[in-house]
Amino acid sequence: MATLGPSIDQLIQALRCLPGVGPKSAQRMTFHLLERDRSGGEHLAEMLSKALANVKHCQRCRILSEEDICSRCNDSSRREDQLCIVEMPSDVIAIEQATHYQGQYFVLTGHLSPLDGIGPEALGIPDLIARFDQKIVTEVILATNPTVEGQATAHYISEIARSRDIHVTRLAHGIPLGGELEYVDSGTLSHAFAGREKY
Amino acid sequence: MATLGPSIDQLIQALRCLPGVGPKSAQRMTFHLLERDRSGGEHLAEMLSKALANVKHCQRCRILSEEDICSRCNDSSRREDQLCIVEMPSDVIAIEQATHYQGQYFVLTGHLSPLDGIGPEALGIPDLIARFDQKIVTEVILATNPTVEGQATAHYISEIARSRDIHVTRLAHGIPLGGELEYVDSGTLSHAFAGREKY
Ligand SMILES: [Zn+2]
Ligand SMILES: [Zn+2]
Repeated sequence: MATLGPSIDQLIQALRCLPGVGPKSAQRMTFHLLERDRSGGEHLAEMLSKALANVKHCQRCRILSEEDICSRCNDSSRREDQLCIVEMPSDVIAIEQATHYQGQYFVLTGHLSPLDGIGPEALGIPDLIARFDQKIVTEVILATNPTVEGQATAHYISEIARSRDIHVTRLAHGIPLGGELEYVDSGTLSHAFAGREKY
Repeated sequence: MATLGPSIDQLIQALRCLPGVGPKSAQRMTFHLLERDRSGGEHLAEMLSKALANVKHCQRCRILSEEDICSRCNDSSRREDQLCIVEMPSDVIAIEQATHYQGQYFVLTGHLSPLDGIGPEALGIPDLIARFDQKIVTEVILATNPTVEGQATAHYISEIARSRDIHVTRLAHGIPLGGELEYVDSGTLSHAFAGREKY
């Protein structure tokens, strides 16, 4: 087995924690960094450590944030009565870029997946219930992914919201089924958001 | 412009130094690391810093190595009279995995590219000439990429070697033109290596 030494092998292996990076691309990345872009590599190591140290989750909406309460949750110009529920931080970015939504968000950081041991607790549902019970939110907008798991999660949350007399909507049809929200083009996403339906 | 704060934005930006990583994949990698694999991210930052600190170039063959002289150059069981010249460290790995070659290597770390200011000095040609002048090498095997630049580089080196009465061969036809050596399947590469031709 041809090898270039432990530090190189370990870096190739470590790069494989990145999504979409197999053995061949990890090797290519390693040679690129060591052979052609050492300053880029040093900068990457530094920014990675910095982000891991500084970035936590907003205590209110659970999005990735460097502050205890994120800038959106702290923005008093945003409506308090609308709450949009998404799976991932990237979905918030996508909706903010595509729509004029000016309400609140709640980031589940995933979807219900009993086989993987991901239940309501892991998605912050108890916090969400506490939020409903403050009786400020009057509309919940379900924007989970249009996958089987995303829809099951939306259904679960809709039952809880409806039992508290909260109006529940979901994004309008138009989003391709089986896709992931962050890959939907912004025209479609904007349209689906504006035309959201009662759930 | 929707953003999640400076540390996250900087990490997304820093990841783009990796080959093949555009804005969308950099964002996806960032969210994956911060949301789902922090220990993988910490390990990556550590291995990256370690490799950048420990890995230099072999003083003899210029391959990436943690030692001043790499394990292959230090291996006294390998033939001293054959010298295989490649563009990149990954080409050495590919040849070692595909063939039974037991001679020496010299890694140019690129090819002649006058427009980018990459001349003979940057490719270590003076060291290569010094090596030729030791009169130990009797066969130079040119294994640069079958691209225009790789072939021009091979031609340049062949002239130098021939003026010193060194036998010059190149890998046999069979390697697809315009491709990169490291992506050639190992059967083709092995065949081309065994059937190398006089240059
Ligand atoms: Zn927040
Ligand atoms: Zn060496």
